[in-house]
Amino acid sequence: MPLALIFDLDGTLIDTVYAHVFAWQRALAEESLPIDGWRIHRRIGMSGGLFARAVAREVGRELTDAETEGIQRRHGEIFRELLPERRPLPGAVELLAELRRREIVHGIATSGRRPEIDASLEALGVGEETVVIERGNVARAKPAPDLFLACQEALGVDAIECYVVGDAVWDLLAARRARMLSIGLLSGGYGADELLAAGAFRVYEDARELHGSLDELGFD
Amino acid sequence: MPLALIFDLDGTLIDTVYAHVFAWQRALAEESLPIDGWRIHRRIGMSGGLFARAVAREVGRELTDAETEGIQRRHGEIFRELLPERRPLPGAVELLAELRRREIVHGIATSGRRPEIDASLEALGVGEETVVIERGNVARAKPAPDLFLACQEALGVDAIECYVVGDAVWDLLAARRARMLSIGLLSGGYGADELLAAGAFRVYEDARELHGSLDELGFD
Repeated sequence: MPLALIFDLDGTLIDTVYAHVFAWQRALAEESLPIDGWRIHRRIGMSGGLFARAVAREVGRELTDAETEGIQRRHGEIFRELLPERRPLPGAVELLAELRRREIVHGIATSGRRPEIDASLEALGVGEETVVIERGNVARAKPAPDLFLACQEALGVDAIECYVVGDAVWDLLAARRARMLSIGLLSGGYGADELLAAGAFRVYEDARELHGSLDELGFD
Repeated sequence: MPLALIFDLDGTLIDTVYAHVFAWQRALAEESLPIDGWRIHRRIGMSGGLFARAVAREVGRELTDAETEGIQRRHGEIFRELLPERRPLPGAVELLAELRRREIVHGIATSGRRPEIDASLEALGVGEETVVIERGNVARAKPAPDLFLACQEALGVDAIECYVVGDAVWDLLAARRARMLSIGLLSGGYGADELLAAGAFRVYEDARELHGSLDELGFD
């Protein structure tokens, strides 16, 4: 069975984390739900349902479904206003191109949804040839293992031969639950120790450093 | 000599870090200087001159003085658009009020400048009675010790009896250079290990947790 790489998208391949944090912060503030920026940051990439529950705990009351939907819609609007263009993180485009060239098995598994993620995939130069699993393909988002397991299945590889590459502790926790190794990237703004404590086997700065370290991971 | 507390402002008492990150990112992108969000985040709170030099290193060329000034001006404009109101971090207002009530010696030392910081001080309920040292009062910003040393002098206390409270490694590094103990807060989005590695004697979540821990620090 070949080794494979399964990538998270936001904060791992695309520089969107800080725009997401600020968009959530403003959408929540508009509903008189002020949440500290750092607490939002540390929850980016988890499922929307868990995120809403965490917000409810912070503000000390339940959110109605209508509130949750309204906040998610406003987050999307503000995010698109703040960041009309998606910027690949350093090395991401080159890494993906080399994986295709060398026929290294790889895919993308994101808590984001189509069509919102389409602009990011286009900016990365990812086309139909790449397996992309998104929120709509599975029942549960991260930190549940579903996204990574669905990607592994679509790639036709063993879980034990998959590395998950992600920037958030939710990626690394979901990877453990999927029985995969994981690699943490600093490009989402977590500290290295947080990523190692969540189970990362290696931590690199960004996709560029990972690209230069493929041999350390056993790809040949 | 009494024990004293010297506070950083942004990210420590006021929830501005993520708005600053995003405002810098957009101001730099407008000048075709794309810098990753996480690299900006980890440099918030250092002096503007050092920040500009770090940006230049990232993009691989020197910035002219006109460019640096233009980017700083745009950052300020975007920041005010993004965040017209300043929100105190949890516990900050109450902590400062209790310090005044108990006559615990304390001051604020920030890399920010008047009049930009005035809205933050007002939101915190800090008036003329509180010593505030800002960028314009000293030759060098953090991680130089000047801001903290000027604050200590204005407070009339010994450096050895001062705790610096900050959210960024630049605060903690400047505190060491000023021969002061320091306390790291997670409210600026650094990980606890990064703060401990930079010399923090204790790490708390935010001003609220610090407030509940004053006895651990020897205040009575």
